[in-house]
Amino acid sequence: MLIIKAGGGADINLEGIAADLAELIEPFVVVLGANALRDRVAGQLGQPKVELTSVSGYTSVYSDQDAIDLIMMSYAGLRNRRFVEMCQRQGVNALGLTGLDGRLIEGARNRGIRVRAEGKTLLKRDFSGKPKRANGPLLELLLDNGYRPVLTIPIVDEQGFAINSENDDIVNTLQDALHAARIVQLIEAPGFLDNHDDPTSLVTQMSRTELEQREDQVTGRMKRKMLALRKLFAAGAAEVIIADGRVAQPVHEALAGKGTLIR
Amino acid sequence: MLIIKAGGGADINLEGIAADLAELIEPFVVVLGANALRDRVAGQLGQPKVELTSVSGYTSVYSDQDAIDLIMMSYAGLRNRRFVEMCQRQGVNALGLTGLDGRLIEGARNRGIRVRAEGKTLLKRDFSGKPKRANGPLLELLLDNGYRPVLTIPIVDEQGFAINSENDDIVNTLQDALHAARIVQLIEAPGFLDNHDDPTSLVTQMSRTELEQREDQVTGRMKRKMLALRKLFAAGAAEVIIADGRVAQPVHEALAGKGTLIR
Repeated sequence: MLIIKAGGGADINLEGIAADLAELIEPFVVVLGANALRDRVAGQLGQPKVELTSVSGYTSVYSDQDAIDLIMMSYAGLRNRRFVEMCQRQGVNALGLTGLDGRLIEGARNRGIRVRAEGKTLLKRDFSGKPKRANGPLLELLLDNGYRPVLTIPIVDEQGFAINSENDDIVNTLQDALHAARIVQLIEAPGFLDNHDDPTSLVTQMSRTELEQREDQVTGRMKRKMLALRKLFAAGAAEVIIADGRVAQPVHEALAGKGTLIR
Repeated sequence: MLIIKAGGGADINLEGIAADLAELIEPFVVVLGANALRDRVAGQLGQPKVELTSVSGYTSVYSDQDAIDLIMMSYAGLRNRRFVEMCQRQGVNALGLTGLDGRLIEGARNRGIRVRAEGKTLLKRDFSGKPKRANGPLLELLLDNGYRPVLTIPIVDEQGFAINSENDDIVNTLQDALHAARIVQLIEAPGFLDNHDDPTSLVTQMSRTELEQREDQVTGRMKRKMLALRKLFAAGAAEVIIADGRVAQPVHEALAGKGTLIR
């Protein structure tokens, strides 16, 4: 069992990934990002990104219903179905899903962000949250019958609402349910870089101890990513491979030892 | 087993349909239209509808790759996932699919339209076609495990391409696979009208013989619809109900005898 997460950058080679999947013998689940595509569609629609600054000074994206519409169009609609088409063109029997479908990824909706407005502190609640559990029986039902699930946001909250969520956290809930031996993360870089700005500073191997040490050295979004990686091992992953999603054969090269191997 | 087809008009009461589905005991599959939504999104994107006139004078929509993108955004993205969300809010474990997913609806791509351009006759081939078969085992796998499939275009062609298709024809392939006893079609009218322009001219009952007679009296799109209806009976349907999708409880009222009952 393999979990493959493809980043949502504009340069990720989705056609190459689909062609590689046709060569795989073991079953797999794919999680797709679509940040760049979403931003492009938002631009075409003239739909601005709404951001809020909390009373504690933290700025975050506010996922209102228009933002969920946009996610449904760009992630669940365009990205997911065009990738399923690429897979079907290669003979891979892909089946696209969001976390809503069959309650595949259930999450807890965020409680809200405290903001100052008109001299008062208000709690503004949006449609975003943390994934808590994946529907393992549904995934196994599909995998056992030869289908290859392709997953995008949104996910579903306790009350059935569509909510936005982070793919790193979704991969963690998938791993809790599937106990994959290997997880491949395809990004717009050669792998984990010692120096973020230097593409030649690739770290080719990393132990779990080193992963924890590095987690202490970073902040913000990178810290969240490192924590998500650590949780994958806690959930039984033997190997996590972070590799270049822009090359001709992204999955093939990742499994052949390019990129960063963490174990 | 019940197949429910909801039209793509702006006034179809999708929330009401989702609430009704929560009351159903028998399993069902839903097929959703989204014409009005697609046209709205096309307008927001400034994407014009491309039409071609064939050498024989017949005008039809030309489904280029932009049109398929639009279908993926509006049908597979927005319409399908918002409806799945409405269902999940009501406790119905809906699961949204297109014909691409697991090759759920396989079709044959159209050969092309003969057009005159620059003094020559050219064959212009688009991404549209006729559905030929539904993946019955996948539908049964989902239904037997408590999931309720919600289906929208696109469908998949022999080579894995996403293609546009008519929902009436899709319902026919579903019926060939599922042999539903009843098929409910929810439209923006009280049912089948004797006079298209007079909403009080509802035909409450129609025999299969009468259906065939009426097919001879109509032309164009309506003739295609009547032919599709006739094929449903040929594929084993006991009853087809054409009813108002705009009322408070569309499915409930259709099953309670409102609309047109054909048997």
